[in-house]
Amino acid sequence: MDDEVRLSNLEIINNYYVFIFQGITSLLANGVYSAAYPLHDGDYEGENVEPNDRKLLCEEWASYGVFYKYQPIDLVRKYFGEKIGLYFAWLGVYTQMLIPASIVGIIVFLYGCATVDENIPSMEMCDQRNNITMCPLCDKTCSYWKMSSACATARASHLFDNPATVFFSVFMALWAATFMEHWKRKQMRLNYRWDLTGFEEEEDHPRAEYEAKVLEKSLRKEHKHKETDKEKLTWKDRFPAYLTNFVGIIFMVGLTFAIVFGVIIYRISTAAALAISSTPSGRSSVRVTVTATAVIINLVVIIILDEVYGCIARWLTQIEVPKTDKNFEERLIFKAFLLKFVNAYTPIFYVAFFKGRFVGRPGDYVYIFHSFRMEECAPGGCLMELCIQLSIIMLGKQLIQNNLFEIGIPKMKKFIRYLKLKRRRSLDHEEHMKKKQRYEVDYNLEPFAGLTPEYMEMIIQFGFVTLFVASFPLAPLFALLNNIIEIRLDAKKFVTELRRPVAVRAKDIGKWILLLYPCLFIPGLMAGYCYAFVISFTSDFIPRLVYLYMYSENGTMHGFVNHTLSSFNVSDFQAGTAPNDPLDLGYEVQICRYKDYREPPWSENKYDISKDFWAVLAARLAFVIVFQNLVMFMSEFVDWIIPDIPKDISQQIHKEKVLMVEVFMREEQGKLQMLETWKDKDKRKGENCNNHSPRLSRSRSGSLSSCHSYPLDV
Amino acid sequence: MDDEVRLSNLEIINNYYVFIFQGITSLLANGVYSAAYPLHDGDYEGENVEPNDRKLLCEEWASYGVFYKYQPIDLVRKYFGEKIGLYFAWLGVYTQMLIPASIVGIIVFLYGCATVDENIPSMEMCDQRNNITMCPLCDKTCSYWKMSSACATARASHLFDNPATVFFSVFMALWAATFMEHWKRKQMRLNYRWDLTGFEEEEDHPRAEYEAKVLEKSLRKEHKHKETDKEKLTWKDRFPAYLTNFVGIIFMVGLTFAIVFGVIIYRISTAAALAISSTPSGRSSVRVTVTATAVIINLVVIIILDEVYGCIARWLTQIEVPKTDKNFEERLIFKAFLLKFVNAYTPIFYVAFFKGRFVGRPGDYVYIFHSFRMEECAPGGCLMELCIQLSIIMLGKQLIQNNLFEIGIPKMKKFIRYLKLKRRRSLDHEEHMKKKQRYEVDYNLEPFAGLTPEYMEMIIQFGFVTLFVASFPLAPLFALLNNIIEIRLDAKKFVTELRRPVAVRAKDIGKWILLLYPCLFIPGLMAGYCYAFVISFTSDFIPRLVYLYMYSENGTMHGFVNHTLSSFNVSDFQAGTAPNDPLDLGYEVQICRYKDYREPPWSENKYDISKDFWAVLAARLAFVIVFQNLVMFMSEFVDWIIPDIPKDISQQIHKEKVLMVEVFMREEQGKLQMLETWKDKDKRKGENCNNHSPRLSRSRSGSLSSCHSYPLDV
Repeated sequence: MDDEVRLSNLEIINNYYVFIFQGITSLLANGVYSAAYPLHDGDYEGENVEPNDRKLLCEEWASYGVFYKYQPIDLVRKYFGEKIGLYFAWLGVYTQMLIPASIVGIIVFLYGCATVDENIPSMEMCDQRNNITMCPLCDKTCSYWKMSSACATARASHLFDNPATVFFSVFMALWAATFMEHWKRKQMRLNYRWDLTGFEEEEDHPRAEYEAKVLEKSLRKEHKHKETDKEKLTWKDRFPAYLTNFVGIIFMVGLTFAIVFGVIIYRISTAAALAISSTPSGRSSVRVTVTATAVIINLVVIIILDEVYGCIARWLTQIEVPKTDKNFEERLIFKAFLLKFVNAYTPIFYVAFFKGRFVGRPGDYVYIFHSFRMEECAPGGCLMELCIQLSIIMLGKQLIQNNLFEIGIPKMKKFIRYLKLKRRRSLDHEEHMKKKQRYEVDYNLEPFAGLTPEYMEMIIQFGFVTLFVASFPLAPLFALLNNIIEIRLDAKKFVTELRRPVAVRAKDIGKWILLLYPCLFIPGLMAGYCYAFVISFTSDFIPRLVYLYMYSENGTMHGFVNHTLSSFNVSDFQAGTAPNDPLDLGYEVQICRYKDYREPPWSENKYDISKDFWAVLAARLAFVIVFQNLVMFMSEFVDWIIPDIPKDISQQIHKEKVLMVEVFMREEQGKLQMLETWKDKDKRKGENCNNHSPRLSRSRSGSLSSCHSYPLDV
Repeated sequence: MDDEVRLSNLEIINNYYVFIFQGITSLLANGVYSAAYPLHDGDYEGENVEPNDRKLLCEEWASYGVFYKYQPIDLVRKYFGEKIGLYFAWLGVYTQMLIPASIVGIIVFLYGCATVDENIPSMEMCDQRNNITMCPLCDKTCSYWKMSSACATARASHLFDNPATVFFSVFMALWAATFMEHWKRKQMRLNYRWDLTGFEEEEDHPRAEYEAKVLEKSLRKEHKHKETDKEKLTWKDRFPAYLTNFVGIIFMVGLTFAIVFGVIIYRISTAAALAISSTPSGRSSVRVTVTATAVIINLVVIIILDEVYGCIARWLTQIEVPKTDKNFEERLIFKAFLLKFVNAYTPIFYVAFFKGRFVGRPGDYVYIFHSFRMEECAPGGCLMELCIQLSIIMLGKQLIQNNLFEIGIPKMKKFIRYLKLKRRRSLDHEEHMKKKQRYEVDYNLEPFAGLTPEYMEMIIQFGFVTLFVASFPLAPLFALLNNIIEIRLDAKKFVTELRRPVAVRAKDIGKWILLLYPCLFIPGLMAGYCYAFVISFTSDFIPRLVYLYMYSENGTMHGFVNHTLSSFNVSDFQAGTAPNDPLDLGYEVQICRYKDYREPPWSENKYDISKDFWAVLAARLAFVIVFQNLVMFMSEFVDWIIPDIPKDISQQIHKEKVLMVEVFMREEQGKLQMLETWKDKDKRKGENCNNHSPRLSRSRSGSLSSCHSYPLDV
């Protein structure tokens, strides 16, 4: 009698929910309804507002006044669901972890400031007596210049290029590893507190677009073959979409590269143009002007392309027709991340690893398009420029995106909606009279668009903080300041500006952790590499060490600047490239110097790459190997030494498991015993029953008579 | 009435088993019984033996005749338990995976053989016309020698040092990654088939030794403080043992290093001594003789120390008094692995990475103890010597350990036991008459000593196969041949020579997989490094590439040998180090050559390290970075692309889970419904009952009367 398959209560509820949800989705898609959303708890401001969760959140969370307090994560979870709760918890942990990083960063920066006057190389560069004549920075129009004129740059670059930077890189690698472990533990703790430990994500239902496409395909096919199998989209159906995706992404990456390349050309040509027109005194500020304007162009392009790429990524994902919502999100994240990463980091990677490396040498420069000479780094090393680039892009991006896109545009949208409403209101006065319903008030809010942009912003910022921290020790501080605002800004947005999102359960932050990994954990992939290469190739750390241990005569850095400069005989200039105005400095120049390791003009193989070059290169590569592996091992070590599950939680879970088994056993035993007793009683009473009405009990014995049934023998 | 905590059946059985098992352990420890073991199924040979599992295993598994067949793993598991089953399954997978590696290895070796006559560097070295005079290999007694006399070595080293080796290294890195993934999948499949998917290992019970020590401690303490808390051993109690361990391990590692160092001294001094006494014609064979004898000494030392270290590791673990058996095993494995690894690999690491690197240069050699000149590598590169070293140690170790320790010694022990038995048998004739019981027969077998030595042997072999495969492409072949024998040998041992082991459940091969990992998977730790460093530093691959692209005039390798040799003016020899017999070659030598990148005698900084040296070093380091990361990425990629759980198994598990939930739900619902019906019936009958005997039912309502009880409301 129990053989028919029944749906359990749980299943019924579940299916019912899915039915409703799916139904609403298609009604929304067909435009029957214009929106569907859960209602907010009530108003968050006003005089006669009853206390509610929204008001509480607004006061205790979404306010800049409480920036120093922990977030009320449990209340956030209660109000918005686990997924959004986890986002804010993650943001909180990240911000909290930025505090020690900022402190160490400030100390490193202060160390740089304090030792700037003791730094022998920059002292030598600033020393007027050394009187080093440098080769011109551009053909014809530029003249020779004195090393001491780059004194300010040299001193400034010491702030970021000193031994403490190496220590700070190691520290930040460890910090990143610790952060990941700390977050895993926090997540486990939250999972336990929010009762998600046993929760497994269910399989998603296909998206409406996918179903439509499948239907269309099966109709088309039926038309031809009359096959009515369950259809699904194959690789063949998706090929055009994949091709579009591939081409689109390649095109956009190419576009980014082209823009960066364009900015380089801009920089080269403007520098040359400015050098002609400016007065000699203003010539020293040329470099700064050009660098700054170029970075600002870069920044504006990055911010615009960021938005454009976001839309394109969404469109590309839509034409792919992914099967489920989860699939959709994953693909979108991948594409958006790829594009935005390339967009934000290309100019920085260029400055860090390529700028000034393919310059050639005086008399044999490398030209682009046969007319633009490749740009060189400032005499203090490219690290200074990397630092400017990084700080402007990072700060500018944060400020503009936060202010414009997260405050300005929503405010504007709200204002437009308000205007529209006002116009309508003036049309029908009656509606204005009665108090508006909750759903009407909420309808005026922005719909919730998913957490993807929020996470994306943070991941890109995380990249700035971890990847290039070697060149900019204040990055964690700026990130910290930004995030303190960001948390409250996002909170405000969620509480006051957005319709209440549908609560979604989630056990972890999903794919995002995977995007944090490549920045950190495929060991050595990004952080290890970046630190190692920035320190060894962009900074002057290794050449200095090599000089100190191989060449220095008295064990000090005296003579280092001279050692890094090669000599060039001005008579070897190619025709038409020598400066037009060689007597600019007031004396005739015969030998000018340039930054490279090459043989002097009086050597047998003049201007060939010298032995020093290879020695320094070997030292740099050796440093990369040692450093990369050191970072990798330490990260692995941190990963290994900090357990993923906090001990108290794992003990608690174990205890509960044991307890549950015990309770279950006892209950089962209780049931059995009860039924046993019953059976006994029943038998005994059966005799009574028999006495009482023997015919009845016999006839019913097949269908569970109370006298002769052994219910647990099913 | 059900509130008392009762032990479930399962718990009772479990505790009972533990009780018996613990009891037997202590009885055994006290010497009441001399052994406790499960009985074998019956005899495995003889005429009138009934068919049994043991006989079947002996015929279908433990026989060399079936070496080409898959092992009957399920039967092995049935007979010996999961733990041993997994060992043989692992061995089988490993052996199977060695087949493709062997094939590719043979192809690479054959490629080397085929191209040996086209190899320009070795042709140049063999060319009598080049007439290159080399500097003497030892002070005074050795004379100058002609490059062409090392022709054979140069040709042989091409077999192992050719571009195919680089390809093979990459292949083996991928192979190792694939092997690990393949094993994980196989293990998952076995777990599913053997119903271990839900199985969690239970907490172990403390070992008898630990309990004794704790008791002792608490007694001592009670004596002083009268505290009777549950005692446990603290760090303080264990400090002496830890110290002993630490000192012991350091000492033994030092001993290994000292022995290797001793062998080096032996090699240097013998080479010099032989060079004096031998005739000029025999002088060329000196190197081979010395190398071979030295390697054999190394081999013997390794094999002896292997056994000694095994015992010491066990002793060191015993004095540590680990808490549980699992703890004990883990610590033992760690120590034994460390010692045996250092023991087996130190001489190989020395040849691969240190030999010939600290030689100095003619006129300024490096001396050990002021009298022994550091040894150089053969002119064809150290790779040849590494290959000899590796093949002798690997083959010798396998042959001797297999034959002597796994066949010889057990046979001898059996024979001794047989002799003893015979003597006793001659004393009491009566016993001889009756047919012996199973337990008596089995008592004569060796006790089972755990799988540790078996795994250890395989892990060390795995290291030989993966770590230095770049220098010896036939290693997988030798390992394959060894393992084909090893499987059947081990099987024979388990079936015929050992008492039947107590079956132990295990889900995986435990710590051993962790020992495979460091050989492979802490990416780049061992395999990545070893390949990268062997190829770039031990082989001549990189210098050849550098020559080809930087120096070669016509794009061929002609002139490479000349390029790698530096010149030395014999008048610059230090007093007393010039050869006694300089006219040995028949003409006067003014310039001799040696293998290094140094400035020639006519240069300004004569004998200084030259630019070429730094260029080659930079290329080598760059290769290490590229190669190591390539290997790492490919391993990660293989790891990522092959899912750990085979798809059919994961689907099956999912299906079963769904089914189980369904069945459970249905059953629970059935029970509920039944009780519901019952309640109804009961009520209706209750009216009858009331009529029948109202007093009784009322008085019993508290204690489960059959009329008014609602049993599931507990």
